[in-house]
Amino acid sequence: MSGNSAEVKFLDGVKIVDFTQFEAGPSATEALAWLGAEVVKIENPKVGDPGRRIIPGKPETDPYYFHMFNANKKSLTVDLKSPKGLALVKDLLKKADVTIENMAPGTIDRLGLGYEAVKALNPGIIYASVKGFGAGSPFEKFLAFDMIAQATGGVMSVTGDADRPPAKPGIALGDTGTGMLMAITLASALYNKQKTGQGCRLQVGMQDAMLHYMRIGLSSQARTGKVTGRNGAKMAGINIAPSGIYPCKPGGPNDYVYVFCSRANPEHWTRLLKVLGREDLIDDARYATPQLRFERFEEVEAIIREWTKNHTKHEAMQLIGQAGVPAGAVLDTMEVQNDPTFEARGIMQVMHHAKHGPYKMPGWPVLINGRSATLKPSPMLGEHNGQVLQTWLAMKPADVAALQGEGVIGQVDMPKAAE
Amino acid sequence: MSGNSAEVKFLDGVKIVDFTQFEAGPSATEALAWLGAEVVKIENPKVGDPGRRIIPGKPETDPYYFHMFNANKKSLTVDLKSPKGLALVKDLLKKADVTIENMAPGTIDRLGLGYEAVKALNPGIIYASVKGFGAGSPFEKFLAFDMIAQATGGVMSVTGDADRPPAKPGIALGDTGTGMLMAITLASALYNKQKTGQGCRLQVGMQDAMLHYMRIGLSSQARTGKVTGRNGAKMAGINIAPSGIYPCKPGGPNDYVYVFCSRANPEHWTRLLKVLGREDLIDDARYATPQLRFERFEEVEAIIREWTKNHTKHEAMQLIGQAGVPAGAVLDTMEVQNDPTFEARGIMQVMHHAKHGPYKMPGWPVLINGRSATLKPSPMLGEHNGQVLQTWLAMKPADVAALQGEGVIGQVDMPKAAE
Repeated sequence: MSGNSAEVKFLDGVKIVDFTQFEAGPSATEALAWLGAEVVKIENPKVGDPGRRIIPGKPETDPYYFHMFNANKKSLTVDLKSPKGLALVKDLLKKADVTIENMAPGTIDRLGLGYEAVKALNPGIIYASVKGFGAGSPFEKFLAFDMIAQATGGVMSVTGDADRPPAKPGIALGDTGTGMLMAITLASALYNKQKTGQGCRLQVGMQDAMLHYMRIGLSSQARTGKVTGRNGAKMAGINIAPSGIYPCKPGGPNDYVYVFCSRANPEHWTRLLKVLGREDLIDDARYATPQLRFERFEEVEAIIREWTKNHTKHEAMQLIGQAGVPAGAVLDTMEVQNDPTFEARGIMQVMHHAKHGPYKMPGWPVLINGRSATLKPSPMLGEHNGQVLQTWLAMKPADVAALQGEGVIGQVDMPKAAE
Repeated sequence: MSGNSAEVKFLDGVKIVDFTQFEAGPSATEALAWLGAEVVKIENPKVGDPGRRIIPGKPETDPYYFHMFNANKKSLTVDLKSPKGLALVKDLLKKADVTIENMAPGTIDRLGLGYEAVKALNPGIIYASVKGFGAGSPFEKFLAFDMIAQATGGVMSVTGDADRPPAKPGIALGDTGTGMLMAITLASALYNKQKTGQGCRLQVGMQDAMLHYMRIGLSSQARTGKVTGRNGAKMAGINIAPSGIYPCKPGGPNDYVYVFCSRANPEHWTRLLKVLGREDLIDDARYATPQLRFERFEEVEAIIREWTKNHTKHEAMQLIGQAGVPAGAVLDTMEVQNDPTFEARGIMQVMHHAKHGPYKMPGWPVLINGRSATLKPSPMLGEHNGQVLQTWLAMKPADVAALQGEGVIGQVDMPKAAE
């Protein structure tokens, strides 16, 4: 814990049995872990979450990916295909407030841990499922990953250049975007459960979740009557100027500054002209409104480019932004990673992991009473076997050791991710 | 309410005084409204939320945009610059569980409604702010909109084609993506407040929120040591095949199917070859792993394209998907809007709005006990002036009428958005 972060206890006491893997599910439970819930990740004793590795069969080959979506969680390794392992997990489910899974369609039911089975064990449980396609969809049984959700949810059709095939946003909206909607619903269901004692079933399809993020494209279509297309760096379906990226020196692949003059504030254009040294155009009727400027789109682009090409993107952002015009440098992943202001404010924190070494990564970005939530290491596979079984089920060390001996759970005395 | 939707009461009784406008803030409070909170939108009596119109000064010129982010809310019009209006809002804040604003930096403080002022009125309040740049950032005082967050948060640098300038994802990740992170934090803070009575201050910067969605790009960079670049329709920073879009007939701008064979499941490739009628390649060592296939990238592309070009994207998705291979048609906004399966499942619902006519749009995509949350109309400007003041502050109709007469609130007997 450092000065800019503190442990958050909003969801203190909330117990989550987490069967999720990869990202769509883990991103949801990680958010709740950062906010104070106790998240116990149930993993296969031999290989664990496939998100732990980038090469099948080679463990721990992608620790960074795993850290990203599993910080602040605990790991318990259980063989779900052994009767004793299944019984053990059922005992945990009886103590849980929430359980969540994002396995392939039908898998959780085949394990004997479907909604009806778990509800029978614990009627007050909040039972959540994340799938590629929603319940009742014609594609309900189809497999999906992030990119399939982005394709079928409309996202790719509005991303990229108009004269090129669709592009996939470089962010995992299908996964984390879906996980966040489930996390909101889970936290709200917990509020209700705290008051009423009632559980519920929650289900989300990643394709359906994409519609939530597609609402600008859909509302533009409703207004224009036309399919919303791709528009490069500009907004799809909205024709105003200036709105886009302008090249800066020294001309690298991400040396651009975004400049936007809002329709809602005519002052933005006047302020911009002053920065550009083009006060002569302030009262020029040809450029008086965003729509008129759009009609003279090429001229407006040239006026701005003439100035930006003589500045770096950082200078351009500083000068235009401080003048009260929305502006932003296009930052690449290395610039984001190395920008010291994120760490200074607790938005990025260093994960001190005993095995993988220190790694600076984003934590939960919402400040709570001025501080971010303290980032804790992602767990080693099975790291919390002993601790969880002793605290949740009041097992004695000898009982835990016996379960290990029978192969029901993985190794108990695992190395710890942090001392 | 129809058979596939029901009113959700998770946050029943939660009172939110909502000063937000446009999208980043309104998307957060709308999520909580769908889940049962009473959200009272405070609007300027003359013009209301600028999100109500696309042309300055012309009200209601973009109802679809407004519907998208303000469903299920109430509207109360108050002149915040009049002493009586300010006093009225302070009385409401004393009754509120949550208040939230996303005004330009410094504005809410100048209105006399900054955190310290509101906390003095109501120590248990949850006070939330959404800004372009985070508290303490060197750009803290800068203006920002969605695209500025996407530029400065790294998102644009990983989106688009490698040989072209950065593109902006066509989805409003800077706005709704940020709003969702605030909504998770708000719901969790409400859980805590219900138990402890304690309020808190929550702050998020849109640039900071983008890092949460950028974690794949950042983890790829940590693994490779290189800046994560743009990769068109493919995943940035991960070199496997097949993974991308393949052209389908009849060759329109979005006639593509996404096909992805996961590293975690070697069966995907075998299944795909059977669909393509290329069983001859199943045991071919040249194509045995995702990495080997990536080395023969052009050959693999040609094998798949040869088949997809003879199918529509819908046929291709059906045939490949039902064989157990992740596949998805690239759908455009019109195809999404007109796909009847969304409405059949309650993922899209028709907003019955008295003034603007029926409009089918996405609601909250997470099903709760098998049903979606019932979509209710976005409010007319000031529609709930009378109702809110009478129920929250026990005012008599005559008192409300007097406030209207003095210009402190807008018109009381407004037309209703729904009968």
